[in-house]
Amino acid sequence: MISKNKIKFLRSLSLKKNRDHHNQVILEGFRLVEEAIKAKASIESIYCTPSMMDKALKNKFFNSYELISITEEECKIISDTKNSQGTIALVNTKKYMNNKISNIRENENIIILDQISDPGNLGTIFRNCTWYGIKSIILTENSIDPFNLKCVRSGMGAHFYFNNIIQDDTDNIFKFLKQYNYDVIVADLTGTNITDIKCKNHWGLVLGSEAHGISNIFKEFRKVTINKIGNMESLNVSVASGILLDRLINKEKI
Amino acid sequence: MISKNKIKFLRSLSLKKNRDHHNQVILEGFRLVEEAIKAKASIESIYCTPSMMDKALKNKFFNSYELISITEEECKIISDTKNSQGTIALVNTKKYMNNKISNIRENENIIILDQISDPGNLGTIFRNCTWYGIKSIILTENSIDPFNLKCVRSGMGAHFYFNNIIQDDTDNIFKFLKQYNYDVIVADLTGTNITDIKCKNHWGLVLGSEAHGISNIFKEFRKVTINKIGNMESLNVSVASGILLDRLINKEKI
Repeated sequence: MISKNKIKFLRSLSLKKNRDHHNQVILEGFRLVEEAIKAKASIESIYCTPSMMDKALKNKFFNSYELISITEEECKIISDTKNSQGTIALVNTKKYMNNKISNIRENENIIILDQISDPGNLGTIFRNCTWYGIKSIILTENSIDPFNLKCVRSGMGAHFYFNNIIQDDTDNIFKFLKQYNYDVIVADLTGTNITDIKCKNHWGLVLGSEAHGISNIFKEFRKVTINKIGNMESLNVSVASGILLDRLINKEKI
Repeated sequence: MISKNKIKFLRSLSLKKNRDHHNQVILEGFRLVEEAIKAKASIESIYCTPSMMDKALKNKFFNSYELISITEEECKIISDTKNSQGTIALVNTKKYMNNKISNIRENENIIILDQISDPGNLGTIFRNCTWYGIKSIILTENSIDPFNLKCVRSGMGAHFYFNNIIQDDTDNIFKFLKQYNYDVIVADLTGTNITDIKCKNHWGLVLGSEAHGISNIFKEFRKVTINKIGNMESLNVSVASGILLDRLINKEKI
């Protein structure tokens, strides 16, 4: 059973100001919740509709949680999506609040996301970063909220593997990259082919939005591009991030 | 000026049966229409709202087309998206109707998409394929319609660079791959690392859906995987296709 106030509260977390105020976010969908459990997300409650309850009770990952029953109707009210999937988790995001750039470990490879505004792309980039073992992400201040529900959905639990999800202004990010002598490369449509580039042991990869490109302050760093054989103006930014990470992570270091 | 019947007709193209019947599709958004013109899509008409007309008139790619004025209200009715972008093109897709598997040139590298159901992913995969010079795509019959409006949007004009967009049943696809001695590799979570694989001159890459995996008939081919350094169950299929294509295209052949 769940109270009307609780439903209202869960629904309210679709807005950033409420997520920030409570340090909480909801995850929707069985697979996403399962992935978040695997990633050791700080899950506070799990809600299931009758049709999903059985599946959840039989799933070993859901075992250590109290499963709260909700009706299909209640689920629809809470849900951000057209087709609610009958499983919702309330997750504490305090770990990621007020993450500072100074938290980053020395020699850690990082990704800097500059004005990425599409939540689906941002979530997919997070998924790529987690696949390739990146532990800290820096977003410029004008990027979309990483805990936007659509971003969390497309991230498929990736968020909860990070040590740091940092949002800061471009001046501070630039100062940090310089101070710690990062080998910074900026994804661009022109520049050195990623297959021809050599990197130092700790690098920072800057990715700009498809709409706005790269902030001026990052333009002094060397540009890297992906070998184009055919046509097309550009690749989707989440695909480009995957290809560049694949090349950077598997590269011999100078 | 545009008639009520024409508006109704354009709106009707959001349904597959109408697209198939008329061999026509609509493209929405200035950038998509511009990309489709560059790709030499068979554009029949372009419609612009007053706010976009000036931009279109000043754009060299729009020059050779008659631009038809529509009101914001008309555009909203035609549009499939919440925020219509004031520019709509009607495109003839006859070139892609009844494409047969026998159209494929000998020794041509191909992509086989097996039950891909997310239109955004499919469009992004098309974009990757065009970037890497793939000219023929084969989809299994239970895949989503490649001219689904969301797929066309995320394809960003990529569709119109293909020679063939073929939809066929898995038996025929399998027979074709065998008959022409394709070096077939299947993307999977297990298998040989893509960096360690050698391919013959003409290869076929099979990508399955995130939900359903690979059809049984393709399971006899060798599996290939992407090196995972960190965590995550899987990569998004459009990202995986980009990474695999990047590796395959830039690979020395045996």
